[in-house]
Amino acid sequence: MGIVCAPNRTKPAQDQELRYTPRTMSVTDPQRITLIGLGTIGMSMAALHLSRENVTVDVFDTRPDFDQYLFNTLPNFLDQGPSSANFKSQPSTSAVASLIASGRLNVHTSLETACASATIVQEQGPENLEFKQTLWAQVESFAPPSAHLWTSTSGIAASAQQQKINDKSRLLVVHPFNPPHIMPLLEIVPSPDTSPERLEFAREYFSVPGSKHRAVVLQKEIPGFVGNRLAFALLREACYLVQEDVVSAKDLDTIMKASLGPRWAGNGVFESYQQGGGEGGIQAFLDKLGGTMQAVWDNLGKVNVLGNEETSWKEKVVSQVNEAYGTLTAGQVREKEERLKDFVAIQTKKYGHDVPEA
Amino acid sequence: MGIVCAPNRTKPAQDQELRYTPRTMSVTDPQRITLIGLGTIGMSMAALHLSRENVTVDVFDTRPDFDQYLFNTLPNFLDQGPSSANFKSQPSTSAVASLIASGRLNVHTSLETACASATIVQEQGPENLEFKQTLWAQVESFAPPSAHLWTSTSGIAASAQQQKINDKSRLLVVHPFNPPHIMPLLEIVPSPDTSPERLEFAREYFSVPGSKHRAVVLQKEIPGFVGNRLAFALLREACYLVQEDVVSAKDLDTIMKASLGPRWAGNGVFESYQQGGGEGGIQAFLDKLGGTMQAVWDNLGKVNVLGNEETSWKEKVVSQVNEAYGTLTAGQVREKEERLKDFVAIQTKKYGHDVPEA
Repeated sequence: MGIVCAPNRTKPAQDQELRYTPRTMSVTDPQRITLIGLGTIGMSMAALHLSRENVTVDVFDTRPDFDQYLFNTLPNFLDQGPSSANFKSQPSTSAVASLIASGRLNVHTSLETACASATIVQEQGPENLEFKQTLWAQVESFAPPSAHLWTSTSGIAASAQQQKINDKSRLLVVHPFNPPHIMPLLEIVPSPDTSPERLEFAREYFSVPGSKHRAVVLQKEIPGFVGNRLAFALLREACYLVQEDVVSAKDLDTIMKASLGPRWAGNGVFESYQQGGGEGGIQAFLDKLGGTMQAVWDNLGKVNVLGNEETSWKEKVVSQVNEAYGTLTAGQVREKEERLKDFVAIQTKKYGHDVPEA
Repeated sequence: MGIVCAPNRTKPAQDQELRYTPRTMSVTDPQRITLIGLGTIGMSMAALHLSRENVTVDVFDTRPDFDQYLFNTLPNFLDQGPSSANFKSQPSTSAVASLIASGRLNVHTSLETACASATIVQEQGPENLEFKQTLWAQVESFAPPSAHLWTSTSGIAASAQQQKINDKSRLLVVHPFNPPHIMPLLEIVPSPDTSPERLEFAREYFSVPGSKHRAVVLQKEIPGFVGNRLAFALLREACYLVQEDVVSAKDLDTIMKASLGPRWAGNGVFESYQQGGGEGGIQAFLDKLGGTMQAVWDNLGKVNVLGNEETSWKEKVVSQVNEAYGTLTAGQVREKEERLKDFVAIQTKKYGHDVPEA
C-alpha cells in the first residue's frame, strides 16, 4: 500500500514567529501529536492518543516495512475497553485505514513532514543518549517552536537529552508503563530547565475528564524515576530469594499475586501501612514492626545484574522463569492485558478516577 | 453474658496414647482448631476457619472482657463474600450466639480446656520469643500429641519458638497477611525439625477445593519470610524517595496504584518481566534494562528504621501519611477491605483458584 501523507502538513515559515502562547497550551484545544518510533510502546502510545477525540496523530518510524507493520500491529492496541466475552476476536486492519481516511492518523516517510505541524512531539526511540540528543536537535529544527517535546524514556533524564537543543524549557520525560494504552500511570519528570507551563500542560493532558490515565509529576530527576526504582528494589530481593533457594520463582509470583499485588492495587504502599498500624497509623506500624523491618533491611540481598560478581542468580532465575511460563504467545499476552484491564476497570469504575479514599 | 464452655471438652487421658496417625492427618476430616490470642489477626483467622464447614473453633484470650469483645468484634469478620451494594450494613452479634449455640464456636477461660480436644492449635499472641516458647510448652502439655502446632508469627521462626517443647516435629509457621479472612496468602515456613507430613497437612488445609486461600511453602527460614521481605525492600526505597523530596507519600501511592499494583495483582513479579522482555522473555529484559537496573541497585536508599542514623525520613513520612490519610475510621477500613475483596474476587472468579496462565 502507498504512503499516506499528512494533510495540511505545510511547514510553518521560519519567519512566521510561531511563539509559545497561553492559548496554544490548552489541552482541550485540538492537538496534533507526532510520534517518533513505533515499536511496542509507540504503538500502544498511538492507541492512547487516538482514543482522545481532539487529537490527530502523525507517525514516523525508520523501519522499511513500516506501513505494513502499522496496519498489522496497531489494531491490536485500539480496543481499549474493559475485557468482554469476545476479547479473542481479532481487531480488523480496516480500523487503521479508516483512521487514515478520516485524517486522524498520518503516516510519514520523513521526520521533517512528521514534525511540521506538531503541537506535541513524543519519541519512543532507542534508549541511547546520542540518538536522543541528535533527534531532539533535528526535531527542534523541524517542529513549530511552540511544540512540546516529550520523551518516553525509562532511563535517560531530560537534562541529558537536551544538550543539543536551544530551547531547553520544552523537553520533559513522560514515562509510561507498559502497555500505556491500558496502564494508567505516566511519570512526568522535568529537567531543571523545563518550564512550569510545559510541565503543567503535560500533567493536564493526561488528566482531562474521562481520561483513564493518571499523571504524577516527580519533583526531581533520579535514575529509574520512581515506579521502576520501587519495582527494581523489590526485584533485587526477589532474585536473591530465588538464588538462595528460599522460594521458587513461580512460588514467589504466587506470593505476590495472593498478597501484595491486590493490596497495592487497592491501596498505596504508605496507605496500606497507615491501615496496618490501626488507630496509631504508620507510626504505630513502624514502632511495632520496626525490629523485623530493620532485621530485613540489614539482611537484604545484594545481587547484581551487571559484571561478574553476585550475578550467579541470573541463570537460576531465567531457567525457573522459562520453565514456569515459557515463551508467551501473542494470545497469552493479550489475555494478560485483558486481566490488567479488569483490575484497572475496578479501580476506575468503583472508586473513581483517583481511587479516592473512603 | 456468661462464659460458654466447649462441649465434649473432656481432656484426653494421658494414658490413652493418642498418637499421630495418618488417618488424623486428612484435612477433610472434621478439624477442631484452638485459636490462642484473638486480637485483630486472631478474629480474622477465626472467621477464616469458621468458613470451613468441617471445622470447629475453640478460642482463648486472656483479656478480661473477652466474651463481650468477641461478640462485638467477630461479626465484622464473618461476612466473607465479594462486596455487595449493602456492605455498609452492620453484621449482627447474633451470628456469634448462633455459632456458639451450634457448637461450632467455643469460648474458653483456660488454656487447658481450650487445647484439650484440638487437632490444630494456632497462636496469634504477642511477638515475643519468651512468650511463645513458654506458650508452646504449656500447649504441648494440654493438647493431644497428634495436634498440629501453628504460629501466625510474622517474625519469629519456628526453630526459635520450639526450644521448650519435646516434639519439635509438630511446630511450623503459618504466616497470614492482614486480613487473613480476605487475603489469600498463607506462608508456610517449617523449621528444620518440622516433619514433612505436618508441613503437607498445613499446605493441604488451605488448598482444599473451594478455598479462597493459597498456601506457599518456603524452603527455609529467613527473617521476614518472603512476602514481607519483598514489601520491606520496596518500602525502604519508598521512604528514601520521600525523604529526598523526589515524590510525596501520596503521589508515591498513586504511582503504585496506577502501575505496579494492578500489574502484580494480575501477574507475578517474574511473570511480568517474562512478558516485558517480549519473545526473549526475562533474559531479554535483563539484557535490555540491565544498565538502568544496575544504576538503580547501586543507588538504592539505605535508610534505617531503628537507631539514630539515617532515620530522619520517619518524621517526614509519618507527617505526610497522616496528612494524606488521617486516622482511618472503622468504616474506612471496612470499605478498604471491600475493595480488596473485589480484586481477589476478580482473580478467583475469572482466572480460577491459582490465576492460571492463559
